[in-house]
Amino acid sequence: MQDTETRDAAAPISGQSARAVRTLHDALGADVVSLPGEFAGRKHADWSRTPSAEPVALIRPRTTDQVATVMKICHEYGQPVVTQGGLTGLAGGACMLGGEVALSMERMSGIESIDSVGAAMTVFAGTPLQTVQEAADAAGFMFPLDLGARGSCTIGGNLATNAGGNRVIKYGMMREQVLDVEAVLADGSIVGGLRKMIKNNTGYDLRNLLIGSEGTLAVITRAVLRLRPKPRAVCTAWCGVPDYDAVTTLLRAAQERLPGGVSAFEVMWPGYHDFVLQRLPELRAPLEGRHAYYVLLESNGADPERQAAAFEEFLADMLETHVIADAALATSESDAAAFWAIRDAPGEYPRLIPGRVSFDVSFSIVDVGEAARRCEARLRERWPNATILIYGHLGDGNLHIVVQEPDWPPTTAPEVQEVVYGVTGEMGGSVSAEHGIGLKKLKVLALSRSPAELAAMRAVKAALDPLNLLNPGKLLPP
Amino acid sequence: MQDTETRDAAAPISGQSARAVRTLHDALGADVVSLPGEFAGRKHADWSRTPSAEPVALIRPRTTDQVATVMKICHEYGQPVVTQGGLTGLAGGACMLGGEVALSMERMSGIESIDSVGAAMTVFAGTPLQTVQEAADAAGFMFPLDLGARGSCTIGGNLATNAGGNRVIKYGMMREQVLDVEAVLADGSIVGGLRKMIKNNTGYDLRNLLIGSEGTLAVITRAVLRLRPKPRAVCTAWCGVPDYDAVTTLLRAAQERLPGGVSAFEVMWPGYHDFVLQRLPELRAPLEGRHAYYVLLESNGADPERQAAAFEEFLADMLETHVIADAALATSESDAAAFWAIRDAPGEYPRLIPGRVSFDVSFSIVDVGEAARRCEARLRERWPNATILIYGHLGDGNLHIVVQEPDWPPTTAPEVQEVVYGVTGEMGGSVSAEHGIGLKKLKVLALSRSPAELAAMRAVKAALDPLNLLNPGKLLPP
Repeated sequence: MQDTETRDAAAPISGQSARAVRTLHDALGADVVSLPGEFAGRKHADWSRTPSAEPVALIRPRTTDQVATVMKICHEYGQPVVTQGGLTGLAGGACMLGGEVALSMERMSGIESIDSVGAAMTVFAGTPLQTVQEAADAAGFMFPLDLGARGSCTIGGNLATNAGGNRVIKYGMMREQVLDVEAVLADGSIVGGLRKMIKNNTGYDLRNLLIGSEGTLAVITRAVLRLRPKPRAVCTAWCGVPDYDAVTTLLRAAQERLPGGVSAFEVMWPGYHDFVLQRLPELRAPLEGRHAYYVLLESNGADPERQAAAFEEFLADMLETHVIADAALATSESDAAAFWAIRDAPGEYPRLIPGRVSFDVSFSIVDVGEAARRCEARLRERWPNATILIYGHLGDGNLHIVVQEPDWPPTTAPEVQEVVYGVTGEMGGSVSAEHGIGLKKLKVLALSRSPAELAAMRAVKAALDPLNLLNPGKLLPP
Repeated sequence: MQDTETRDAAAPISGQSARAVRTLHDALGADVVSLPGEFAGRKHADWSRTPSAEPVALIRPRTTDQVATVMKICHEYGQPVVTQGGLTGLAGGACMLGGEVALSMERMSGIESIDSVGAAMTVFAGTPLQTVQEAADAAGFMFPLDLGARGSCTIGGNLATNAGGNRVIKYGMMREQVLDVEAVLADGSIVGGLRKMIKNNTGYDLRNLLIGSEGTLAVITRAVLRLRPKPRAVCTAWCGVPDYDAVTTLLRAAQERLPGGVSAFEVMWPGYHDFVLQRLPELRAPLEGRHAYYVLLESNGADPERQAAAFEEFLADMLETHVIADAALATSESDAAAFWAIRDAPGEYPRLIPGRVSFDVSFSIVDVGEAARRCEARLRERWPNATILIYGHLGDGNLHIVVQEPDWPPTTAPEVQEVVYGVTGEMGGSVSAEHGIGLKKLKVLALSRSPAELAAMRAVKAALDPLNLLNPGKLLPP
């Protein structure tokens, strides 16, 4: 199907892999299957900067049937496959260990249809999240999942990692944004019927099993996404809160009393607050004075005027009962944007705080205050001068911790991890709230999962991918 | 451990099963393991009236460790097990085919703890749903799952079947009411850590795999349930709607505009409306005149006064724009109860419409109107005098259809099923929206699941229960 020159480029690949690549190339053509010489310089690592080997071929299918053909051939030859979306992952889940073909979903991109009666959108897995958000908006809906990587990350990657983000407290993780997924299993069979039913109790929940499996159980090719009513108004406030009990009181009261519910409840510890305000001169502190905790509270809903009145009333009550010590109410979109700019400062980390060690952990909400206290105390004891930044989506129990000292040797990172993951394990938390396991968290997965659970996961993996072809070496420790 | 007399009662059981029962009896005692003579007259069938054999022993454990011991012994002897909750299922999932032990969760009942900061409740699987609802209410929360069987059904059964009910449109099915489950696998290993994190991306979603698996993958022993803010007010209206397009317009407008969202959107076709009003003289029609569709619309939320004003404004707009032809607003709890009494009339079916054939199917919301039309036309063509009742939770695409003619021979039921499941298959619907597959829907599962999906389910079953001990013969066709 191709000239000899192109085939020659595959020469360095040897043995079974070379035969697999040749068969793929013959079956799908040079348009779909590129050989190593043809994609020199292409990146294969994700945002976690985990090192990646070069793939033995780059496959860019255009249809689900082509993906099925890829998997049938790979299954026949025992050829491992790493599926790639936008390469924005933070756990190394899409990098290559060596010897795999890269299956990029970049050409399976676009919105197939929007069902405005059923509030559903059928999309290809390679569609960028932002494209989906914009199409939902244009159709008069909202697609609520939102992450910093929105312009680059794909729906397939969001599904593979069960992505979270800012609005989980109201709308849930990626799993709750999906009605069905179409996927190709390791043997090339296609599952998932692009169904749009909210209620469908017909056997095992394959959909949720594939979502969050980080490319190790199937290649997700399309999905039916669930759209939500577009909020007609958003109310935002910045609160200073005197202690952790008051933080949880504020959360519960807001959930009970705000007509549209709580769409964000972001908590920042004072170390974080002071650091970002000091380092980013374009930010302004919304409140005078120092507080034990800062909360960015957001409520979105259906009825602009009534909602605003209820929000103001609520804040006044919280002030009067001393649940909050002080509050600034956003009276314009630019006020709200200024509050969010403080919470979104981690986008500046690469410049502000190089060489940092970062964590994405979660706890029972009742334990978050104590978990943060223990982490900070133990880190501080060992590294008295370290920068320690703590903040998170508290309504979900999700805590982000960032630790750095400018002159740390590279050997310090594992020691820092030992401290934070140690607290996570002892307090029954999760070592990965939203980023997944990939390669980077294989070593600590056992802190959050029992041997029986890991054995059950391995049994499921062996059942659906008996040759261990799909993203081998990721998600499950050997 | 027990006297010979009790052991003698086990005499009719032979071979491997007898040895398994004897070992169970020795290990757990007569308090936990009852032999056939000791539970004569006990029912083993569920509300679907599927015939059930007698179990070879009745096991009533008190702890998760006892369940683990049961499964270890059964695994050793190859002894099949049927787990039983409140026996209120509608698909025969808890009946015995012969040769199984019955594992009743009745003694593993009660609420272990309530975490009012994390809005979570840890309960034993045998706890009745109503007990959970009442405990949530007493703690200032709501547990939103609600079914007619609430007084008898158990949380374990709700989990095993991923139960639905009335408020799915706002709160989701049982899967969305759960933070974690503890379960015993076929080999006696215990999985699930009773974790309370909303965000926890650490490997495969075993929780959702076990939920809805109808006792075929594990014995669920405890669960951490997610509690919701208690609504402070409920607004209810009964609407007459001129056509199906208007029904879907009303649904979308309500979701966009009502501050608390839509907590119920129940649609009744006129055949249902007229039948129940005629047969149940205690019911009164909320509206004069006849309409193409009747909608019971409910919105619950956080702010009584503002919510009521927004609800009235919304109804006035819908009337003015002719989306609804007429509406009655509930101005008291007894008004609302009178509306719900019309929707809840199926509770009277055993008396009103004996020998009926019932369906619990779902479709894309956009297709529900056409699906109902096709079913009714094809049924009417064949059985011109049949009673045909159609109604459902339209916001979820869930349609209930009930068909009966007083003098039908018993052979008619399969013919009626062929018509309705035929429409379900051809329109890409689900043959089981909320009741599950059990035994009763094994034959039609393939209308909603492809051969590749069934093969993947079988692979998962074989991986987690290689000896096929857990509820064998249910959920997956042979």
